Amino acid sequence: MTDPVFLRACRGEDVDHVPVWFMRQAGRSLPEYRALRGEGSILDAIGDPAVAAEVTMQPVRRYGVDAAILFSDIVVPYHAIGFGVDVVPGRGPVIAQPFKSDADLERLRDLTELDVAHVTQTVDLVVKELEGTNTPLIGFAGAPFTVASYLVEGAPTRDFGIIKSLMHADPVLFDHLLDRLVAITVSFLRFQVARGARALQLFDSWAGSLTRDEYERFALRATQRVLDGIRDLNVPTILFGVGTGEILDLMARAGSTVMGIDWHVDLNVGRQRVGDRPVQGNLDPARCLSGEKLGVEAAREVLAKAGTQSGHIFNLGHGVLPQTDPAVLEAIVRVVHEEGRAGVV
Amino acid sequence: MTDPVFLRACRGEDVDHVPVWFMRQAGRSLPEYRALRGEGSILDAIGDPAVAAEVTMQPVRRYGVDAAILFSDIVVPYHAIGFGVDVVPGRGPVIAQPFKSDADLERLRDLTELDVAHVTQTVDLVVKELEGTNTPLIGFAGAPFTVASYLVEGAPTRDFGIIKSLMHADPVLFDHLLDRLVAITVSFLRFQVARGARALQLFDSWAGSLTRDEYERFALRATQRVLDGIRDLNVPTILFGVGTGEILDLMARAGSTVMGIDWHVDLNVGRQRVGDRPVQGNLDPARCLSGEKLGVEAAREVLAKAGTQSGHIFNLGHGVLPQTDPAVLEAIVRVVHEEGRAGVV
Repeated sequence: MTDPVFLRACRGEDVDHVPVWFMRQAGRSLPEYRALRGEGSILDAIGDPAVAAEVTMQPVRRYGVDAAILFSDIVVPYHAIGFGVDVVPGRGPVIAQPFKSDADLERLRDLTELDVAHVTQTVDLVVKELEGTNTPLIGFAGAPFTVASYLVEGAPTRDFGIIKSLMHADPVLFDHLLDRLVAITVSFLRFQVARGARALQLFDSWAGSLTRDEYERFALRATQRVLDGIRDLNVPTILFGVGTGEILDLMARAGSTVMGIDWHVDLNVGRQRVGDRPVQGNLDPARCLSGEKLGVEAAREVLAKAGTQSGHIFNLGHGVLPQTDPAVLEAIVRVVHEEGRAGVV
Repeated sequence: MTDPVFLRACRGEDVDHVPVWFMRQAGRSLPEYRALRGEGSILDAIGDPAVAAEVTMQPVRRYGVDAAILFSDIVVPYHAIGFGVDVVPGRGPVIAQPFKSDADLERLRDLTELDVAHVTQTVDLVVKELEGTNTPLIGFAGAPFTVASYLVEGAPTRDFGIIKSLMHADPVLFDHLLDRLVAITVSFLRFQVARGARALQLFDSWAGSLTRDEYERFALRATQRVLDGIRDLNVPTILFGVGTGEILDLMARAGSTVMGIDWHVDLNVGRQRVGDRPVQGNLDPARCLSGEKLGVEAAREVLAKAGTQSGHIFNLGHGVLPQTDPAVLEAIVRVVHEEGRAGVV
C-alpha cells in the first residue's frame, strides 16, 4: 500500500483505515482561519498564494484528515478572466453583468495558465508542504451547470427562475454557454493537476435544482465532457451536488471515479443508485453542531450504513457549517480512523 | 357526479376534467392582492376575516381553479395562543422566545375555538360565497415537525441545526413538544371542517430536512396522530412537503388521502413511491416565470407524466413564486382543464 489511503479508497482498493476529509474543512469554522483572514473578500485571500496555501493546510494539521483540498472558489477562473464576479461575505457570488445573450459568450474566453497563476502558485506551495506525507491535494472546479447558474442568475437564488427561463427559452444559447464553461473548466483542472493535485472534485452544487429531464438535457453532457477532458491525467475524480437523490443515477453516467452522496440519501441506497462505484459522504453537517458525543454518534450511523465494502471516503454530506466546533470534527476523524471498516484489511 | 371534481379526484374517482389549484394561489403574485393588502404584517390581514376571505376568493375568481384554500399561515394557531410569533415580510416567521426546554411546554396550551375566531369567521364568509358552486374550500395546518422547526429554530433556517440538536440530544422533550403540537393541530383542523372546509392540507414543508431515520423517529408518528384525529370527519386530506423524494414512502404511511409530490420527483415515480394513491402536483414554479408558451409547455410535461390513471390533482410542486405573471397560471388552468386525462371519463 504505497499510495495514500485516500487515493486507494477512491479507486475502490483495500485500505488500512477509512479515509476522511470534510468539504469546506478550510474555512470559517477554524479560529486559525478567522485569525489569518480577518475581514475582506475571499477572492483577495485566494489571490494571495501564501495565505491560500496556509488556509489549505490548517485543517490538515488540526484534524489529520486524509486529504487537503485547495482553498478556492468555483468562481475563481471566471473572476480571473474578468467576467466581473465578486464574492459578497454572507451572501455568495454576485455578478455585475449576468450572462444574458450571445454577446456575453465573448466574455468567456479560454483560460490561460497565467490567468490563474495565483492558483497554481498555491498548488505549488501546498504540494511542497505535503511532500513526503500520505496526504494528497484535491483540486477542484465547479461543474458547468452550476457555474452557469451563477453567471446567469447573477446572485444566489432559491428558485433558479432566471436560468430555467434561459435554458428552456433558448436551449441553443445555453448549449453555447456550456461549451465555453466546459473548455474553461477542463483547462482549470488540468493546470491544477500539472502542478501536483492528485485528485479532483467537481462541484455540481446546484444540480439538485433540476428535474431528471432537465439534468439530462442541460447538465449531464457538459459534465461528461469535462470528465472526458481530464481522463488522460489518470487522477481520481469525485462528482458532488446537493439534493441530488432523484438524479444520482444520471450523474453517475458522467463518469467520475467517485460519487459524492449528499446527506439526504442513505449511503447504502446512494451507492446502489450510482452503480456500486466508490462513494464519498455523507454525514449531515447539522449533526456536528451539538457536541462531540452526538457528533460521534451521528458519524457511527454513517459508518454503519457504509458497511465493509471497499470504496468509502468519509465526508460530510454538504460543507462544514461556519458555527461548527472544530473539536467535534477532530473527534469524528478519530472515530472514522478507528472504527471505519469499509475496505479495511 | 354530484361532488365537486376536486373532491372526486382526491378520492381517486372519475372526473369530467382534471382539477387544478395552486399552492399560494392567494398572495403576492396577484395585483388585486397587493392592492388590498398593502404593507403590514400578514398576521394582521389574516386577523381580519373580511380581508382574509376576500384574499381567499381572489384566485378562485381570476383563475377558475377547482378549490379555494384558506388564506392563512401555519403559525396562526401559535400566534393565537400567545406563543409570541411574528411573520416578518420577506423573512418568514420569527419567534421572540424560541422553544428550548420543558418550561416552554406550558406556553403551548390547548387551542379553543375562541382563540381562532378570526379564522372560523373567515371560513364562514368563504363558505357562504362558495355556496352553490363546485369549488370547495381547503383548510390547512402545519404538520407537527414543521411547526416544531419554526418554534425551536426561532427563525427561518437552511441547516436545521438547532432543532436537530434538540431532537437528538433530548428526544423525550421533543416528543412532549410533538404531543402538544398534535393536540393543537387536530383542534385547529376540526374547527375549520366544522365551519365548512371540505378538504384539509397538512403542510410538512420542512420534512425534507430530515433523513429517513430522522423522519421515522421524529415526524411520522405525530403526523399520523393528526390524521387519525380527524379521520372521523371524512374529508380528504393531502400531505405535502418540499424535497421529500427520499421519504415519500414513509410519509405515505401517515395515512393521508392524497400525497403531494414536490417538483423534484417525476409524478409517475412519486405515485409509485406512495403506494399508488391519488397524487397532487407537481409543476416547478420556476417554469411559470417565462411567459405563457413556456409555462403551458411545462404543464403539458406534467400532464404527460400523470397519464390517464384516476387520482391526479394538478398543482405546482411548491408555492407560486411572487414574481409569477398571473396570465401564465390562467393559461395553465385552461390547458389542464382541456387536456388533462387522468381519470377523465
